[in-house]
Amino acid sequence: MQESVAISSDGKHWFVLNASPEIRAQIESFAGLHPRAPRDTPIQGIVLTNGDLDHCLGLLSLRESQPLAVYATPAVRRGFTESNVLFRTLERFEGQVTWRLLRFGVSAALPLLDGRPSGLVMSAFAVPGKSPLHLQGGAPSPEDNIGVRIDEPSSGKALAYLPAVGAMAATVGEAVEGAEAVFFDGTFWSSDELVALGVGERRAEDMAHWPVGGPRGSLAFLRQLPAAHRVLIHLNNTNPLLRDDSPERSAVESAGVAIAYDGMELSL
Amino acid sequence: MQESVAISSDGKHWFVLNASPEIRAQIESFAGLHPRAPRDTPIQGIVLTNGDLDHCLGLLSLRESQPLAVYATPAVRRGFTESNVLFRTLERFEGQVTWRLLRFGVSAALPLLDGRPSGLVMSAFAVPGKSPLHLQGGAPSPEDNIGVRIDEPSSGKALAYLPAVGAMAATVGEAVEGAEAVFFDGTFWSSDELVALGVGERRAEDMAHWPVGGPRGSLAFLRQLPAAHRVLIHLNNTNPLLRDDSPERSAVESAGVAIAYDGMELSL
Repeated sequence: MQESVAISSDGKHWFVLNASPEIRAQIESFAGLHPRAPRDTPIQGIVLTNGDLDHCLGLLSLRESQPLAVYATPAVRRGFTESNVLFRTLERFEGQVTWRLLRFGVSAALPLLDGRPSGLVMSAFAVPGKSPLHLQGGAPSPEDNIGVRIDEPSSGKALAYLPAVGAMAATVGEAVEGAEAVFFDGTFWSSDELVALGVGERRAEDMAHWPVGGPRGSLAFLRQLPAAHRVLIHLNNTNPLLRDDSPERSAVESAGVAIAYDGMELSL
Repeated sequence: MQESVAISSDGKHWFVLNASPEIRAQIESFAGLHPRAPRDTPIQGIVLTNGDLDHCLGLLSLRESQPLAVYATPAVRRGFTESNVLFRTLERFEGQVTWRLLRFGVSAALPLLDGRPSGLVMSAFAVPGKSPLHLQGGAPSPEDNIGVRIDEPSSGKALAYLPAVGAMAATVGEAVEGAEAVFFDGTFWSSDELVALGVGERRAEDMAHWPVGGPRGSLAFLRQLPAAHRVLIHLNNTNPLLRDDSPERSAVESAGVAIAYDGMELSL
């Protein structure tokens, strides 16, 4: 299924990192996200790291009248709510969606929906990227694409989540610094993956994805990180890493880097 | 999963009736809809019977650069394309989406994408309904909600598909007349289903769904139809028909009416 991650400090209250178009099936597949009563949800917040439809469209499947807290930069909020009449399905009552705007350089405690602390603190980092396809032509902004880092102060552990990384940058290094788990952009193995298969004309970098392989690929960066868990996510269906028997997969696994799969669970 | 039907005359080329938000998983679950090559699809057309998100949102998951033919009334087309910046993901090249506008009182052959005949003929019927939630406030139109009937002239067989029916009407009778299979609105068992469960304030009729049960319910209409297959679809998650052991389900099954399920297949 399409890429999404759910995180929790107490195992009862969850935050979802990006709302994939398949969010209904993803909620169904994991008991921790099941409602305990009609119109209930254990989902305390949804973080959008950019405005791409594979990260946002699932919001429109969550129109069952429960309140939603959505964390995004002002640019991503504007991109998904302006000129989008479909979003009115999430504006049916006062307080259906509460936007919590992310600012760079500020770490903010993540509250539960009822205002109590979740035990988690989130920081957002501007990461090289681009605005979503359907908004291209507008002015690009550092807010278009972010990585997030979630710290649990009680344990001192942290998770970094960067599903779209267009290139190396100082902010990428800051986001993953000392994190126990790093989820990282694994969209493409090589720059010319789509071109070589005859299914596209653009290179990985044209789509703001740093390829994993090659001498300048992200694997060289991930390989040397001390994180206990380094996980490639957001793999395109053309990526040879999806094949169990590919040499590319062997190379990644030999470097101690994992490939995400549906239902993967980690405890830090 | 959410309601959708795929139909074919030759078993190779398919038309999909409504594009549910779960269309990717639905395509994956049925080999007939699998691509045979990169960017290929056996889907020759997608019919939208109204503008509700549970019938249209899946279009936005079909942005893999294959051409799409979408059949809808002018009102449904306008509702999904105007003031919807997300639709630009389906306007990336000339001919990505071809709209084929449906008119009442005209039966039209359904062509394959390459222009050859599919062996199927479609007719659209205005059926009591309403405009989608996110467009309410605009002027209602008979084009807001339709039922379709697909005839296969070579066999003389027909299928009627009416997933949203607000009330009985002459057009409902015309659409199902002599059809071998009838797929019919099974959203709610009773008018006050949401109110009784405390999860909503509106009655079934307020949402333009004719309830199945009760002395004036649609079961009395379906019971007397000669169609070999009468199938309730589009069931809300509050509907007691979803429970295998409910008395409501026994009543429906005793009347020779089936409840749709994921993966259901019929040959006429």
